[in-house]
Amino acid sequence: MQPTPSSRLWHGVSWYPELAPERIDADLERMRERGLSVVRLGDSCWSTLEPDEGHYDLTLYQQAIDRIAAHGLHAILCSPSYTPPRWLALRYPGALRVDRDGQSHGHGGRGHGSYASTRFRELACGIATVMAQAWGRHPALLGWQIDNEVNCHVDGDWSVETRMAWGDWLRRRFGTIAALNHAWQTRVWSLEYASFAEVQMPGKNPFGHTTGTSGGTHHTGLMQAWGEFHSDLTVGFVEAQAAALRVHSPAPITHNHIQLERTRSADLFRRLDFAATDSYWWADVASNHWHNIAILRGLGKPWWLMETSANQSGGGTPGPLKPAGFLRAEAALFYGAGGTGFLYWHWRQHRGGQEQGHGALRTAWDLPALGWDEVRRVSDLVERCGDFLTSCPAAPAEIAVHDPFSSKQYIGRGGAPMGDGDAQWTYRRAIDQELLPQGWLFDRLPEDGDPSPYRVVLSPWMPVLWPETLERMLPWVRAGGTWVVGPVSAIRDRHGSAPADAGFGLLEAHLGATCLWTAGMSAEGDLAGRPVKLSGFCAALQAGTAEVLGRYTTGYGAGQAWLTRQRVGAGSIVMIAAPGKDLYGPVIEMLLEPLGVRRFTRTAGAVVLARSGQGQRGWVLVELHGTGAEVELPDAGTDLLTGEVLPAGPRHLGPFEVRVVRC
Amino acid sequence: MQPTPSSRLWHGVSWYPELAPERIDADLERMRERGLSVVRLGDSCWSTLEPDEGHYDLTLYQQAIDRIAAHGLHAILCSPSYTPPRWLALRYPGALRVDRDGQSHGHGGRGHGSYASTRFRELACGIATVMAQAWGRHPALLGWQIDNEVNCHVDGDWSVETRMAWGDWLRRRFGTIAALNHAWQTRVWSLEYASFAEVQMPGKNPFGHTTGTSGGTHHTGLMQAWGEFHSDLTVGFVEAQAAALRVHSPAPITHNHIQLERTRSADLFRRLDFAATDSYWWADVASNHWHNIAILRGLGKPWWLMETSANQSGGGTPGPLKPAGFLRAEAALFYGAGGTGFLYWHWRQHRGGQEQGHGALRTAWDLPALGWDEVRRVSDLVERCGDFLTSCPAAPAEIAVHDPFSSKQYIGRGGAPMGDGDAQWTYRRAIDQELLPQGWLFDRLPEDGDPSPYRVVLSPWMPVLWPETLERMLPWVRAGGTWVVGPVSAIRDRHGSAPADAGFGLLEAHLGATCLWTAGMSAEGDLAGRPVKLSGFCAALQAGTAEVLGRYTTGYGAGQAWLTRQRVGAGSIVMIAAPGKDLYGPVIEMLLEPLGVRRFTRTAGAVVLARSGQGQRGWVLVELHGTGAEVELPDAGTDLLTGEVLPAGPRHLGPFEVRVVRC
Amino acid sequence: MQPTPSSRLWHGVSWYPELAPERIDADLERMRERGLSVVRLGDSCWSTLEPDEGHYDLTLYQQAIDRIAAHGLHAILCSPSYTPPRWLALRYPGALRVDRDGQSHGHGGRGHGSYASTRFRELACGIATVMAQAWGRHPALLGWQIDNEVNCHVDGDWSVETRMAWGDWLRRRFGTIAALNHAWQTRVWSLEYASFAEVQMPGKNPFGHTTGTSGGTHHTGLMQAWGEFHSDLTVGFVEAQAAALRVHSPAPITHNHIQLERTRSADLFRRLDFAATDSYWWADVASNHWHNIAILRGLGKPWWLMETSANQSGGGTPGPLKPAGFLRAEAALFYGAGGTGFLYWHWRQHRGGQEQGHGALRTAWDLPALGWDEVRRVSDLVERCGDFLTSCPAAPAEIAVHDPFSSKQYIGRGGAPMGDGDAQWTYRRAIDQELLPQGWLFDRLPEDGDPSPYRVVLSPWMPVLWPETLERMLPWVRAGGTWVVGPVSAIRDRHGSAPADAGFGLLEAHLGATCLWTAGMSAEGDLAGRPVKLSGFCAALQAGTAEVLGRYTTGYGAGQAWLTRQRVGAGSIVMIAAPGKDLYGPVIEMLLEPLGVRRFTRTAGAVVLARSGQGQRGWVLVELHGTGAEVELPDAGTDLLTGEVLPAGPRHLGPFEVRVVRC
Repeated sequence: MQPTPSSRLWHGVSWYPELAPERIDADLERMRERGLSVVRLGDSCWSTLEPDEGHYDLTLYQQAIDRIAAHGLHAILCSPSYTPPRWLALRYPGALRVDRDGQSHGHGGRGHGSYASTRFRELACGIATVMAQAWGRHPALLGWQIDNEVNCHVDGDWSVETRMAWGDWLRRRFGTIAALNHAWQTRVWSLEYASFAEVQMPGKNPFGHTTGTSGGTHHTGLMQAWGEFHSDLTVGFVEAQAAALRVHSPAPITHNHIQLERTRSADLFRRLDFAATDSYWWADVASNHWHNIAILRGLGKPWWLMETSANQSGGGTPGPLKPAGFLRAEAALFYGAGGTGFLYWHWRQHRGGQEQGHGALRTAWDLPALGWDEVRRVSDLVERCGDFLTSCPAAPAEIAVHDPFSSKQYIGRGGAPMGDGDAQWTYRRAIDQELLPQGWLFDRLPEDGDPSPYRVVLSPWMPVLWPETLERMLPWVRAGGTWVVGPVSAIRDRHGSAPADAGFGLLEAHLGATCLWTAGMSAEGDLAGRPVKLSGFCAALQAGTAEVLGRYTTGYGAGQAWLTRQRVGAGSIVMIAAPGKDLYGPVIEMLLEPLGVRRFTRTAGAVVLARSGQGQRGWVLVELHGTGAEVELPDAGTDLLTGEVLPAGPRHLGPFEVRVVRC
Repeated sequence: MQPTPSSRLWHGVSWYPELAPERIDADLERMRERGLSVVRLGDSCWSTLEPDEGHYDLTLYQQAIDRIAAHGLHAILCSPSYTPPRWLALRYPGALRVDRDGQSHGHGGRGHGSYASTRFRELACGIATVMAQAWGRHPALLGWQIDNEVNCHVDGDWSVETRMAWGDWLRRRFGTIAALNHAWQTRVWSLEYASFAEVQMPGKNPFGHTTGTSGGTHHTGLMQAWGEFHSDLTVGFVEAQAAALRVHSPAPITHNHIQLERTRSADLFRRLDFAATDSYWWADVASNHWHNIAILRGLGKPWWLMETSANQSGGGTPGPLKPAGFLRAEAALFYGAGGTGFLYWHWRQHRGGQEQGHGALRTAWDLPALGWDEVRRVSDLVERCGDFLTSCPAAPAEIAVHDPFSSKQYIGRGGAPMGDGDAQWTYRRAIDQELLPQGWLFDRLPEDGDPSPYRVVLSPWMPVLWPETLERMLPWVRAGGTWVVGPVSAIRDRHGSAPADAGFGLLEAHLGATCLWTAGMSAEGDLAGRPVKLSGFCAALQAGTAEVLGRYTTGYGAGQAWLTRQRVGAGSIVMIAAPGKDLYGPVIEMLLEPLGVRRFTRTAGAVVLARSGQGQRGWVLVELHGTGAEVELPDAGTDLLTGEVLPAGPRHLGPFEVRVVRC
Repeated sequence: MQPTPSSRLWHGVSWYPELAPERIDADLERMRERGLSVVRLGDSCWSTLEPDEGHYDLTLYQQAIDRIAAHGLHAILCSPSYTPPRWLALRYPGALRVDRDGQSHGHGGRGHGSYASTRFRELACGIATVMAQAWGRHPALLGWQIDNEVNCHVDGDWSVETRMAWGDWLRRRFGTIAALNHAWQTRVWSLEYASFAEVQMPGKNPFGHTTGTSGGTHHTGLMQAWGEFHSDLTVGFVEAQAAALRVHSPAPITHNHIQLERTRSADLFRRLDFAATDSYWWADVASNHWHNIAILRGLGKPWWLMETSANQSGGGTPGPLKPAGFLRAEAALFYGAGGTGFLYWHWRQHRGGQEQGHGALRTAWDLPALGWDEVRRVSDLVERCGDFLTSCPAAPAEIAVHDPFSSKQYIGRGGAPMGDGDAQWTYRRAIDQELLPQGWLFDRLPEDGDPSPYRVVLSPWMPVLWPETLERMLPWVRAGGTWVVGPVSAIRDRHGSAPADAGFGLLEAHLGATCLWTAGMSAEGDLAGRPVKLSGFCAALQAGTAEVLGRYTTGYGAGQAWLTRQRVGAGSIVMIAAPGKDLYGPVIEMLLEPLGVRRFTRTAGAVVLARSGQGQRGWVLVELHGTGAEVELPDAGTDLLTGEVLPAGPRHLGPFEVRVVRC
């Protein structure tokens, strides 16, 4: 049977055959012997394969791929559009990204090709086609990766072709320029546009900065659209390459997504075959990895961890070194949560370049580097648990949290009332660091995602509310779901504009309460009788039919509600109308505990993952912070790593301890 | 009688009829009912009135202004040059501001029109003329505002036409290029110019920065002139519009001045009919508001507060929320000090745009926003006290402080020895925060202003001394005035150059002391026998006929004076030749107390304002910091707000308490 | 006998005759009377001498130089290429530097001429030739200074001609493009170049920055070459002027070098006659001055301190004021260490310009400024000790520290694994602040310098190891030298690439140990049995024949060595394979004490300098930090300043105390 990205647990590494062509066989033999099964290659092969435009030399990679097969390994081949060769920049300066100052990005780094450039798309698809023709049916080929970490280094492109694509996108989005002017409310500031071609990209303007040289804040509506447009532009760039590959290759296609705030994950993977992310963390590891994992789990596709370091990252200053035992715990987290690939970046230390100092499995002088033994421990895990984890799928969480890409654009691109550029992290912190450390495991739901697998959906820091979201959520609520909205949610429409009919727009009709006013403020309040401090963007709710769970007790809002619950059919909608430092966690606890939503640890750094399906059940328990943790094993079973029979009930996990329990 | 900006106390709000045309009558009715009397509109009307160049549609504003009249309200109409429409930027890219990097500011913000552009001036005057023709004699029209907050967002313009205007300005200022070279001392650094056309704008140069990409420090003389030139350029831009309006409208004209460090207030309002400022503060409110008030009071014209928020500002992160009672106290401060207008920005929350999150009187969904009740309390104040405050004028302070625009340029534009960009605030802090909180009420005097209404003139942080200032001050001193100069004053001539004849230049002949040397240093000294710490730009004075009030006691200056007083006719000139942290206040106290200069509070946040004239007298007492304050009511009288008869003498003011006392 | 830069102790000042031509004689008379012997002038004379291209007016400088001679003074004449006149920028915009954004630096500052511009070189050599023809044999002429503080304000030039020079330089360095591609390992990231003309300058690229507007990290190899290229380019610019001067003048030539990290000192002075530096410090004065002194001492040429302030510096915010007595101590440091010139910047306060606030010997109004008396004390020192210090040379230190210009480029230009831009200071701190304050006096050795005068050579923070260095060092080690390498040394080849054969490349064969791996990490270890903390870029050494002096005790390296010593012939090579906070000093102490390397103080701020030669011996003792210090006078002798006979042995130096002892 032809292997697929989910037909087993894959364990592998990125490899650059051009670094030491004379060591190809030695490298592959060592990989195999270390227990690796998959080799990722090609993300910077362009100048090797196509040293000048239209002149190809496939020798080295042909040899590499043939030898991969010969060693019983499989390959993920990457299209190299992330690393355009020198001739491309010289011959087609218009194919390069342009920054907000109107300056073209030149050669010397990576990611300088413009996603909007017709020429760049042709050239990127051209080299992808050459690769697909050569190796699209090669026995070693497990799958394709398109480009590398799209939008990783820069946010936005101001090239001439981007400008044209921007106008076209706006036309598709709004239909008429009058609709755009209305949606953005441009007349108020004399910003009206007479045609789509007139809508500027967000370049330099004088508003909102005080020095003479840079910056300028743009209109909320324009920034909202700019963020969405760039996501769509990026998806289009990836899909064009996918289409080129499919002409000649049946192999599944993915992308390693790292800038999850810049390209909508649901769109990016919609037409790809499996999902993947790169995830490097050295602080609050569990929550930060889970941020990416939860989004991938919400997509309903096989997924991989395409890059992490076996020891330390370090393009510049080296990141902290992973302690012994940690790498296996990371692998258990990703595999346990449902990922079927776990790969390192990279095999042998680069002798030169921007990431010369990045950790690898082998030193530049080809000795085992730090982590060499750790990789072996991951291989052991894969060997002992691979069959079980492949056959018994990861179970979804009981809770979903919206992954509100539109709202992230609103918050991250200066949309009032959140302002500062770090604001998107407020949102991440609240969710990732107030939920998971308390044991609330969750998946992520795209804005138009189906809530039916979940009992509870949380929508915090989701200012932009789509009508489609409401349409998905309301029937589910009526059927018994609990939807917890806020704080700072539902205060803007899909274009980032404030609603004119009610403070919470379309949602307000279902809240059983009226939004009287909103303000940035600090006040005291109560939460089921207990005093709490509220601070940030607050709304005052006048409860109608809704139950009041929390009121303001001081200030302008005194006596009005900040937390309400409205029964809707068999379910309910909770509105959290005020944020507060460390408040989201307690509110969620108060709401979810009575619902019987289960959690199996309250120790940050520990995760308890359910497996269930195909007549099997099991649990993966992982401790990631090196502190040890108290967890609960919900069912008795056998630990596949040790062979021990473990009773159900409370357990202590030692530092980086992993249990893979088949019940 | 036709109302004028000072014929009553005006109370009003900015309004954007284009935001909700269907609510025009409802809005105006609510304004009237809330006690407002004036509506400010039009600052961003350009695209509405002139959707394409030369094509006009006055319908909406005609309706708005007619309905204003119909509701018994009055209008301030703004010329919309702050918000050039899209067609202007597209059709006339040369009409836009250019930043120091040579990049044009584009559409999408505000204030991107170049004040130096002939085309932009024509277009701005053109739309102003259309408005003046249409509504210049409309019964609702109370007055005009030109543009909005000139130079608010950017400091400087490097356009081609600005460059030409710069050369012309220099020619007018210096006459010959030799005079410029001499005044700036360009030969020393091989910077000599052969013609005015050769004098560059302060663009990028390598001096004084260490990275490869930005910055560069320019010559003191050039920066001094650049600052003065930009002020003049701005004034010319405003005056051109005023001239256009006057052809068709007899209504008085103002501007809402907010960047008081970038355009000289005395020049800006010289040919306008009344003055105005925008003032938003949430810390050290009394001193910060007074900074603007004192400047307006010094101009000898009616003046308004054109913008403040009724609740909170917030283009980005919302500012603190004004607590209950505070708004009335602010209004009492402005009205009590002599202002006759107090207006809010703005009526209804914008649905989109950069200031979407800014507080307004109504929510986007048209409910009363925070501050709605506070506005009513201001209306009550106006109703009870308006007649008295209109008929009995505000009395000038006993003290004037120079408002040294030239010196601000010197300090703020990198002039040695002050250096850093925050330096202008040193000056503000010293004056506003060491005087007002100690109860020393003061007006501001332009550099060539008439000191005759005052007993004492203070000139701190005024490095640049004009001969004209000396000419105004000396006769007044001889007639009995007390002139307190320094610290860091009189060390540069009007071109920012150090004097070659004496350390304090033209002034030194009148000091009875010789400046031996200057240095940035820290030392100890005495102040009338008490030890003090001196730190910053210090001069050592060798006293001749002057009385020594303070000496250095350590360091190079030991034994020399840092504080002297010289009798000059019936008056005296005091030289404060060294700064020190928190030292200005004690020095002033020591000097002013023996003169019997009166103060009626020593509590920061409290202000006691005298009214006197037309046979009436009275006092306005305000507490602004919410802390309560001890004040003295100088004369018995009746509180017009409560009807109480209040005895003269000490009083406690509660938080935000206001008393308007007619004697 | 014609005086030379080292024929006596010179004491002087920079002077701008154009500032006050009417005071020329008075100025020179005061200089002479104050004890000064040399006047430096001309660094900004260009517009005075050549007011328009090809039109000369030498009157003022002719008079100045004639009067210098008439007053018995001598002159250092500066070529004025640092201050190109206005006509040059207007007529030859291509002669100006261009920054990374592609923007030309304009007139108004200094240093804006492009060192790569053929036209600029012609013009700079042209005016230098005119000066040499006029005054090249003038009796007052003591020497020439070329330009002023090369590369002081900007790092790098991106002009078109620079680009061409860059390609040419690369061709000379690498010979073939294949060699470059191999040396830089460009194939790995698809960065291969097909010709030298294709190699871009390090402009904007998207890698490694996250905002849309600036930055971009480049390839290690390219940045390494870029740094070396710019040094060579600068040297070529200086040498072209030197050649022009020598045609008409036999006088010795120097440059005042201040940006020692941007131009290789050994190259810069190779073809000049004497060396000089500008050195302004107000914190950790001894170490910071010594940083420059040690480099100059290592060049084997006469050398001067060309600029310091007599009181305070202050282009912007004034630096701290030098206390009384300090200036003489500074002079004693420079003269005592072997310098034969000590000059101030500058004579009279500039009336205008960027350094208007900089301290000078006279005020703008021509009174004595602060420091006037201090200068006299320096003159006294010169008078009493000049003969002795001129005839008895400064002795070299026992220790040399490599001055690894290539490694500074690697560290300072983003080379992994050091990363941040401040990294070059890590290196300085370690050396200057852990050695000198402990009394270890050292000279600096260029990368290819001759170690034979020294007993010990230290090579810390020298990641880039040249083969030439190894060739110089090994015979010296075999003959008995002690070479202490590391930390963070010998991990890259001359192109900044990691070695492929051994962790420490060419050096490893001589270490008696194998580098197993490297990592950025923290761990514990021991140093001769004492516990120490190791942190930063560490390597694990497996000792073969080497003696282990320190081992890791925790972490991945536990049991392996971080400090080894290998006997090599009669000498030894010590490898310090891990850094640690405040660890370098103790390691050096442990290594050097047994060797009997002498030190005469352990108080920071005190320096004890040996003089020896021509049958004489002596010591100069200086206290620079104002704290007093304990030192040892190695031999009895007579203090030339006081006439006292001082016994050998411990002494206390009071604040700023100076002793010049002839034995």
